[in-house]
Amino acid sequence: MNMSRDTVYLAATGTALPGDPVDNAALAKLLGASEEWIDLFVGTRTRHFAWDPATGEVLRTLADLCAEAGSRALAAAGLDPADIEFLVLATATPDHLLPTTATEVADRLGMDHLPVYQLQAGCSGAVQALDLGRCLVAGGRRAGLLIGGDVTHRFLAARRSAARMPTEELVNHVLFGDGAGAVVLTAEPDGPGERGVALRGVLNRCAGRRRPPGQFIDWSGISDRDTERRMLAEDYKAIEEHVPAISVEIVWELLGELGWTVDEVDHILPPQLSGRMTARIMEHLPVPSAAEVSCVTETGNTGNALPFLQLDRLLPRLGPGQRALAVTVESSKWIRAGFALERA
Amino acid sequence: MNMSRDTVYLAATGTALPGDPVDNAALAKLLGASEEWIDLFVGTRTRHFAWDPATGEVLRTLADLCAEAGSRALAAAGLDPADIEFLVLATATPDHLLPTTATEVADRLGMDHLPVYQLQAGCSGAVQALDLGRCLVAGGRRAGLLIGGDVTHRFLAARRSAARMPTEELVNHVLFGDGAGAVVLTAEPDGPGERGVALRGVLNRCAGRRRPPGQFIDWSGISDRDTERRMLAEDYKAIEEHVPAISVEIVWELLGELGWTVDEVDHILPPQLSGRMTARIMEHLPVPSAAEVSCVTETGNTGNALPFLQLDRLLPRLGPGQRALAVTVESSKWIRAGFALERA
Repeated sequence: MNMSRDTVYLAATGTALPGDPVDNAALAKLLGASEEWIDLFVGTRTRHFAWDPATGEVLRTLADLCAEAGSRALAAAGLDPADIEFLVLATATPDHLLPTTATEVADRLGMDHLPVYQLQAGCSGAVQALDLGRCLVAGGRRAGLLIGGDVTHRFLAARRSAARMPTEELVNHVLFGDGAGAVVLTAEPDGPGERGVALRGVLNRCAGRRRPPGQFIDWSGISDRDTERRMLAEDYKAIEEHVPAISVEIVWELLGELGWTVDEVDHILPPQLSGRMTARIMEHLPVPSAAEVSCVTETGNTGNALPFLQLDRLLPRLGPGQRALAVTVESSKWIRAGFALERA
Repeated sequence: MNMSRDTVYLAATGTALPGDPVDNAALAKLLGASEEWIDLFVGTRTRHFAWDPATGEVLRTLADLCAEAGSRALAAAGLDPADIEFLVLATATPDHLLPTTATEVADRLGMDHLPVYQLQAGCSGAVQALDLGRCLVAGGRRAGLLIGGDVTHRFLAARRSAARMPTEELVNHVLFGDGAGAVVLTAEPDGPGERGVALRGVLNRCAGRRRPPGQFIDWSGISDRDTERRMLAEDYKAIEEHVPAISVEIVWELLGELGWTVDEVDHILPPQLSGRMTARIMEHLPVPSAAEVSCVTETGNTGNALPFLQLDRLLPRLGPGQRALAVTVESSKWIRAGFALERA
């Protein structure tokens, strides 16, 4: 079985979005692209950048955003850093390769002498962190902090004209934004933060065998920095074709494992590739009674942060006895991911 | 408690070292450095590179090496890819940011529909993988594959003269080598591979609060590739000063948690920063009866691969009833890591 159902609890969330929102008019001007094209193609209205669009200057690092989100989640949970027994940070865009951003964030949050994991992941990273965190709590730890975040400055802050970019690269400039989100996981249902929000199941399944990557991001060191090669590409046609169907399959698989019916889902957290894709996916998801919890039109796709941003919006709305499903697809290697929550 | 003692078993190991060993005479010629200095400073005799020292051409990727090591471990365990219920890959030097090397390796090994984790880590990565794998097996999975590996071509393959490098960068060129190693973890002690090698405990503790990094590796994307900045640095003085003492503390902590005495350790797997450092550390470790299991003088420091290379040497020597301790220190953020094995 690829889904575990040990019960752990979400005690609180925290988020960090840098600076003022950048709207499509400003983004279009920056890229030399058409505002109407961004409106139509992406359906996202604003996003946040941790760099100055005018100069490319990096204003806040991934560690800055993750420490802020983590600190807010700790405060909301009413826990001290010393109460936290492990830290998991998921990202595709770490500040450095070593030390890891996860260990830097542990330092800033005042955490010491604990296991610190950094997961390299894309859109499934938040779910992978939940899966790992659930395992660690089920194994005996009382509380842990999960953080997901991504920053775009190394790829998008170059002042390059849209006219000079292949579309597979350009789409990244209009889809993504910067941000971080965090969740405190606990073994017990009660605390000063949220009460009784049980993580009923996590689905975390890489299903990319013999399938070409849907998303590709490369990096350079010293020896290869002058090599001309593809660094950033998104196969948006494959994503548009496959993600809606995979999302439906994830919902059915979660429902089947949990023994829930479609009418028992009160809230749905759909994939957040873009405003337009989320709307298309929502048309297909078999959850007629569920209220949509999305943020992509305001935040853009923030990668590893995004399910945490959705959770931050969900928890105040999740009433006693209500259930929620989250669905995410990592197109890099077609990872099927999702989770189920229920408030006691 | 930061050390868990749920029992899982090591069923088999596998390794991959690319090409012919490169000796100090060849490395000295390549760098324009002194062979005697390398002999004296590092005490490592040979290492392997997955790139052509003459041209810098990349001959084998991290995925190549990790798939080879993983395939060998599976074969030695007598297991098929379908028997494996999770994959964990630890590295500091992934082939790309996305898709992860872990998902690429899963594809190559014929694994599908399973959780695949990639840990960003340095010298503690193999131990972090063991810690995560132990948790997943304790949580109900029957078998998993752990892989650790690193490749140096993005940092070391540039044909730069030693005379033009600061020492903090140059040391990396003489310390590191390429390689991968793998272990199959199982819930049951018996199988066609090794029998009854129990993982008695894992120590995985980040203890770097308010301490500057001992090792630093950076990366570039598109926007920042032309920025001149420090990309690779090792604070070898801090490492020389602190790692031997931390290693001693790790041994005492493992022994204390396990209730073992110093005389009950039959084999010791010490940190493998370099031949010289390992010899210095061995002088201090309080394990008078233990036989040393090292490979660094032949392989160089292969980062995330290295504890797996040591395990590959240990298992044939570990007799019935014998015990072994492994110690590793990740200087990037002063992660204390180690584990304990016992054959039934």
